[in-house]
Amino acid sequence: MLYATFIIILGDNAVSTPSIQNTGTEFSPTLETIRFAMAGTVATITLNRPQRLNAAPPQMFAEILQVLNALPGLGARALLMTGEGRAFCSGADLQANAAANASADAGASASAGSNVGVGAGVVAASTAGAAPPDMSRGERSYKVLTESYGPTLLALSKLSIPVVTAVNGAAAGIGCSLALAGDFTLAGKSAYFLQAFVNIGLVPDGGSSWMLARLVGKARATEMMMLGERISADKAEQWGLIYRAVDDADLQTQAMALAQRLANGPTVALGLMRQGLAGALEQSYAQALQTEAKHQSIAANSADAREGGQAFLQRRKPVFVGK
Amino acid sequence: MLYATFIIILGDNAVSTPSIQNTGTEFSPTLETIRFAMAGTVATITLNRPQRLNAAPPQMFAEILQVLNALPGLGARALLMTGEGRAFCSGADLQANAAANASADAGASASAGSNVGVGAGVVAASTAGAAPPDMSRGERSYKVLTESYGPTLLALSKLSIPVVTAVNGAAAGIGCSLALAGDFTLAGKSAYFLQAFVNIGLVPDGGSSWMLARLVGKARATEMMMLGERISADKAEQWGLIYRAVDDADLQTQAMALAQRLANGPTVALGLMRQGLAGALEQSYAQALQTEAKHQSIAANSADAREGGQAFLQRRKPVFVGK
Amino acid sequence: MLYATFIIILGDNAVSTPSIQNTGTEFSPTLETIRFAMAGTVATITLNRPQRLNAAPPQMFAEILQVLNALPGLGARALLMTGEGRAFCSGADLQANAAANASADAGASASAGSNVGVGAGVVAASTAGAAPPDMSRGERSYKVLTESYGPTLLALSKLSIPVVTAVNGAAAGIGCSLALAGDFTLAGKSAYFLQAFVNIGLVPDGGSSWMLARLVGKARATEMMMLGERISADKAEQWGLIYRAVDDADLQTQAMALAQRLANGPTVALGLMRQGLAGALEQSYAQALQTEAKHQSIAANSADAREGGQAFLQRRKPVFVGK
Repeated sequence: MLYATFIIILGDNAVSTPSIQNTGTEFSPTLETIRFAMAGTVATITLNRPQRLNAAPPQMFAEILQVLNALPGLGARALLMTGEGRAFCSGADLQANAAANASADAGASASAGSNVGVGAGVVAASTAGAAPPDMSRGERSYKVLTESYGPTLLALSKLSIPVVTAVNGAAAGIGCSLALAGDFTLAGKSAYFLQAFVNIGLVPDGGSSWMLARLVGKARATEMMMLGERISADKAEQWGLIYRAVDDADLQTQAMALAQRLANGPTVALGLMRQGLAGALEQSYAQALQTEAKHQSIAANSADAREGGQAFLQRRKPVFVGK
Repeated sequence: MLYATFIIILGDNAVSTPSIQNTGTEFSPTLETIRFAMAGTVATITLNRPQRLNAAPPQMFAEILQVLNALPGLGARALLMTGEGRAFCSGADLQANAAANASADAGASASAGSNVGVGAGVVAASTAGAAPPDMSRGERSYKVLTESYGPTLLALSKLSIPVVTAVNGAAAGIGCSLALAGDFTLAGKSAYFLQAFVNIGLVPDGGSSWMLARLVGKARATEMMMLGERISADKAEQWGLIYRAVDDADLQTQAMALAQRLANGPTVALGLMRQGLAGALEQSYAQALQTEAKHQSIAANSADAREGGQAFLQRRKPVFVGK
Repeated sequence: MLYATFIIILGDNAVSTPSIQNTGTEFSPTLETIRFAMAGTVATITLNRPQRLNAAPPQMFAEILQVLNALPGLGARALLMTGEGRAFCSGADLQANAAANASADAGASASAGSNVGVGAGVVAASTAGAAPPDMSRGERSYKVLTESYGPTLLALSKLSIPVVTAVNGAAAGIGCSLALAGDFTLAGKSAYFLQAFVNIGLVPDGGSSWMLARLVGKARATEMMMLGERISADKAEQWGLIYRAVDDADLQTQAMALAQRLANGPTVALGLMRQGLAGALEQSYAQALQTEAKHQSIAANSADAREGGQAFLQRRKPVFVGK
């Protein structure tokens, strides 16, 4: 309902509230900005606004959230996110929803869409240009961040299955945040990560201020945030910002292979690992030891742990069913 | 008493409660799974179940705790931990205590001991197979983690003297946690670090979910936890997971030299550093500044600080006595 | 008043309380241990006790604080800190204020000043030797850390403009803390970072116990703290401890260029980034998302964000005015 509400408020091109039809393995929502597919137990979300370098209007994050909420019912055991075309996600796109105040506030809506291919490269659009027209840019930013982008990223962090992102090009602004919000980030060699906010007078959002420091430490997080320069895939791997930089041609194959491997893993344990690591980042050592014991007591009772132990004793590869 | 209790419950091969005899420099406990020695002011614990690649039953961690508690009385100023044979510690070994429920639950007790030398390599045993038989695997895991493994690791984190681990081979499962729980981890070039839990359907324990992220950041911690692959000593050094990878032949010499150096250091200050760093990981900058001031007020009043200042002015090497 | 008080107590060479004359762009305090200059909107603090390798008495930190407090009124949009001569800062210098108790406590006041050029290298002086004479060394340490060094470092962390440090030589003891307390640390290739405290029986102060772990992780922080060895500029860059190691000859030019670039940036956003990153290090992901939204609502309403959006749409470089 929350999302229906803001889509109605914000959306010029969000003509209808996407319907959720989640019955067993059936899931046929009306998705306009992303594609969704299941291949076995691997769910794939493809950001699908290639003509705008997958710049993300609030609608895109709402549609992602819609899919995330449906994943458990679909039997998904891993999620792969990637972008259509030559970018992963070039940032927030608030121009899509800014028709109502376009004349009064045209320049304020910095959209990557209108600057595709500019020599200086993709600059992330900001979250600072959304409707309604009687709001200040600041009020609009706050609204879309707390009602759209933020809840989707939070849901992604709480998802009970592993998340792989395949970064096939620019990951800028909130697109950078999204690219780093999963468990494994693979990037094509030509891809890059860009905290573009500073270049248009804004601050990092999408959780970057929290995430970057926990990935690469305070100095490199600061460098990314304050300088707004591209970090190449290779440097990102070297820094530990991402899991791997791979040849562009191999990106989708390798990312899908990793997602399938994770989907064939012990899903209960993997879900608890996500939860455990997220918790441990905010806990003391003593608390983490306690949480681990609780999580182990759940994992150890899972069918997959029984299979894992048996396979180990029998010197064979385990077959995990995700339970 | 706590440990006596659970050893009686769990132990088939723990025939007696080890007696603590700590009078001055006398300390002659009955140790069955580890060896303990003092060389000057360096205490050494050697995990000593080489036939099982030093897989750790709860008894092993109880014996370690027993030693840790005795160290202050023994005048130890540094602790060195290493493994006998060709592994550091291949994980938890609950089979040792699982005789009572072996027939009913045989496959569930994944012990490295029974798989020594398997081609796929050492897979960490889990904490999920311990007795008593009327408990679920989950209940047993929770019990041994909260009553045995966890308290020992917590005591290690609170120890008032520096801890060096010399990783002479596989450090898997809770063996990996133990290898990383000190201040300095040295590893032989052929050693490796393995968060093996996922391979048998379990979650990392022994504090790994907390420790890994603080050593190598979120992405690499996730990689280790979710993929369960070996991290070589060289990669571990490159990542900052450990202090140094050294030639296998030099490992024990170099680790002992480092332990001796630390033992010859200003013990009061070193103990406060351990406490300060642990605290700082959970504090704000302002709180850490305050804690540092308190700690400095203690360190500055120590005899070693006086000696340090005098030696500095006299352009000579200080001789610290640990007070 | 706080500082006036302790300068009177501590200061032999602090003959007068420096007067603050901050009217518009006029700022002519009496500075004895540092120099201060404005070049456009870049403020520069130069530690200026080269004959003592810029060893820092409490007075130096009091004078830095005095400048920090004046910066907003001076229209500064970036701060550059560096050292005069061949060191950045060789540590605390409490000898300068220790005349009163020199005879009773001579050796206890380990000052770099009296050991300039010693072969073993600069050893950071401690904060453990300050007056008044009826205090124990510990009490004195606590006093100067909580009343002088700490408040200045805390003010630096809360400053609303970016901070660049140009480390032109040894950064030892609290000089190391100071070198790492900004947003960007540039170091000449011959410079080094040294947590020298352990070498004289003391514990790291100046926030190092908190900062190091957030820059380079727990193992490398421990190495620096407990071993007290020099970390070269190159290694510091490789570890992510600092932003860049550059040729000695280029250091000041490059540091000033970076400071000017930051001074020409969107000052409101940059100030919020500093605050946001500091906060995020102590917050949960959910809290950070909320803080980011609040900060974005402020940044988005700034004149610089409007300019940034317009420049982006017009495919030109933005001209930020800092508002």
